Amino acid sequence: MTRLSKSISRAVIGLTLGGASVAAFAFQPLPDKAPEPADNPGTAAKIELGKQLYFDPRLSLDGTVSCNSCHNVMASGTDNKATSAGVAGKHGGRSAPTVWNSAFLSVQFWDGRANTLEDQAKGPILNPVEMAMPSEQAVIDRLQKIPGYVSQFEAVFGKDGLTYDNVAKAIGAFERVLITPNGPLDRYLKGDKSALTAQAQRGMQAFEQVGCVACHNGANFSGPQLPVGQGFYQRFPSFSSQYDKKYQLTADEGRFEATKKEADKHMWRVPTLRNVALTAPYFHNGAVKTLDEAVRVMAKAQLSKDLTEQQVADIVAFLNSLTGEFPQIAMPRLPDTPNSSLVD
Amino acid sequence: MTRLSKSISRAVIGLTLGGASVAAFAFQPLPDKAPEPADNPGTAAKIELGKQLYFDPRLSLDGTVSCNSCHNVMASGTDNKATSAGVAGKHGGRSAPTVWNSAFLSVQFWDGRANTLEDQAKGPILNPVEMAMPSEQAVIDRLQKIPGYVSQFEAVFGKDGLTYDNVAKAIGAFERVLITPNGPLDRYLKGDKSALTAQAQRGMQAFEQVGCVACHNGANFSGPQLPVGQGFYQRFPSFSSQYDKKYQLTADEGRFEATKKEADKHMWRVPTLRNVALTAPYFHNGAVKTLDEAVRVMAKAQLSKDLTEQQVADIVAFLNSLTGEFPQIAMPRLPDTPNSSLVD
Repeated sequence: MTRLSKSISRAVIGLTLGGASVAAFAFQPLPDKAPEPADNPGTAAKIELGKQLYFDPRLSLDGTVSCNSCHNVMASGTDNKATSAGVAGKHGGRSAPTVWNSAFLSVQFWDGRANTLEDQAKGPILNPVEMAMPSEQAVIDRLQKIPGYVSQFEAVFGKDGLTYDNVAKAIGAFERVLITPNGPLDRYLKGDKSALTAQAQRGMQAFEQVGCVACHNGANFSGPQLPVGQGFYQRFPSFSSQYDKKYQLTADEGRFEATKKEADKHMWRVPTLRNVALTAPYFHNGAVKTLDEAVRVMAKAQLSKDLTEQQVADIVAFLNSLTGEFPQIAMPRLPDTPNSSLVD
Repeated sequence: MTRLSKSISRAVIGLTLGGASVAAFAFQPLPDKAPEPADNPGTAAKIELGKQLYFDPRLSLDGTVSCNSCHNVMASGTDNKATSAGVAGKHGGRSAPTVWNSAFLSVQFWDGRANTLEDQAKGPILNPVEMAMPSEQAVIDRLQKIPGYVSQFEAVFGKDGLTYDNVAKAIGAFERVLITPNGPLDRYLKGDKSALTAQAQRGMQAFEQVGCVACHNGANFSGPQLPVGQGFYQRFPSFSSQYDKKYQLTADEGRFEATKKEADKHMWRVPTLRNVALTAPYFHNGAVKTLDEAVRVMAKAQLSKDLTEQQVADIVAFLNSLTGEFPQIAMPRLPDTPNSSLVD
């Protein structure tokens, strides 16, 4: 167990033991670095390769969609659309989660069906309504024709380094550095009491007292930092309300669709609230366009509470304090295929 | 007339007077800076604003297509596809020209229907098969809802600065810095005789002797640097050949489609050859996938010549020496719309 996860566990224990008075335990600044798997250490060359792959639309069937198309690192790490457009204008059924700080999640995708960033990266490339490549081999065959990738994979992973696993490792290594520390709450927690407005501080109290913090805790506000592969799930909605129909909250059966286990019906990975002010529209189907309405829906659907408008506004102010500092990133140069084109 | 355009005019005069022996006049290194219009000087703040707009998919109807989607500055300045995918997977009929060094062109688009980068930038945003915004006003209405744009437009252009003209000015100012100097030919011309391989030097001679240089001259290899708004056009194909049918070279009537003047049938702006090794597939319809075939087609269609395979290979080697140095660019941060989404 890393020092990081130990301290987070302590925080969660604190929460469990202390009830409503444990804010000091539950809130933690976002670390500058994310946990790193032993089998995929991030080196500068690997991260640079992963960045190129992340931005390269040639990883999609028709050369139009990259990872960044739906998880835009120049913005919120999402496309801010209810559902994303894949190749040929196709749409899936779930809203793109933010890539920022996703390295702190112990499982990936809305339904937790991938354990790691690396496993996650393999999915959309082959998904018929996303990047739509027909097979792992088709991805490798294409990248094999790009000399600048062949040489980089060899330099980073050794000879015969251009494999689908290593494509995923490079992308995962890049995503692992997409961290946004030092938001207002982080600075507040580190001692700068002027970093939060009075309203945001009221919102922080409401966030605890209403009970949001029961699930949205830990440095990433996505629950306790569990071992990789162990998801922190909650049923959504937990309570029936007018919002079920209004926002079609139950049409998608959540984790059940991946596991086919009855107990997983409408279970979802608790999403991060880091940068949540920037990642509208909200929920797995992107049906709710504004953060204030998302707060109302969550209070009702998860806690069976009707908030006052003051509580909603205060909590929104607090959630805005979770917007972090986005690092400046140099654009990658995508390796070329001199004298010919690769994708029709 | 700037010092730059004077020196280019001298080069063209030299070419006209001197016939086949004028290589020393015709070939020129690419300047580090492009000519700048008096009414749109590039300031750091304006260029930064233009970069944000260039990368912002919210300039398209459904929030999926940015200028960069088809003119990818992380790569060749094109999408390396025959025709580009606009919103909802729609395709136009012409191949996206490279944005790199487009600031040296005196007219824009394949058919020269825009005089300036600024005029050009206004087109695709409203084109129904590209970014598909319904009107200039719709663009302004959308940007008006993004506080970070409103404040930047005001800072750069003054109060009430958020206008469609100023959107175009900011994008044009950004595009004007997308220059790739110091390629092998440039270094050769500046005195580094080792910068060109022997084959590339043979190709340079063939490029002159075959006659390519008659149109592809000037620092940008797109013809003489004419006053802004005055295009350098040629008929393509000039000679009928087997390629007309094979690559459907005459289906599109070129500049005629914009002007409806008989004399403009199959007239096209002479495109730059800078970075041409990276911008496959070739021609207005992107029908030719490789540079060697493009060289064969051009020799036949424009000069009625059948090149030897050695000549083709040599000219391709020379054209590869026109690949320049791409500047490192910091990714923009796209201004956000806190607590709500803008595009469904």
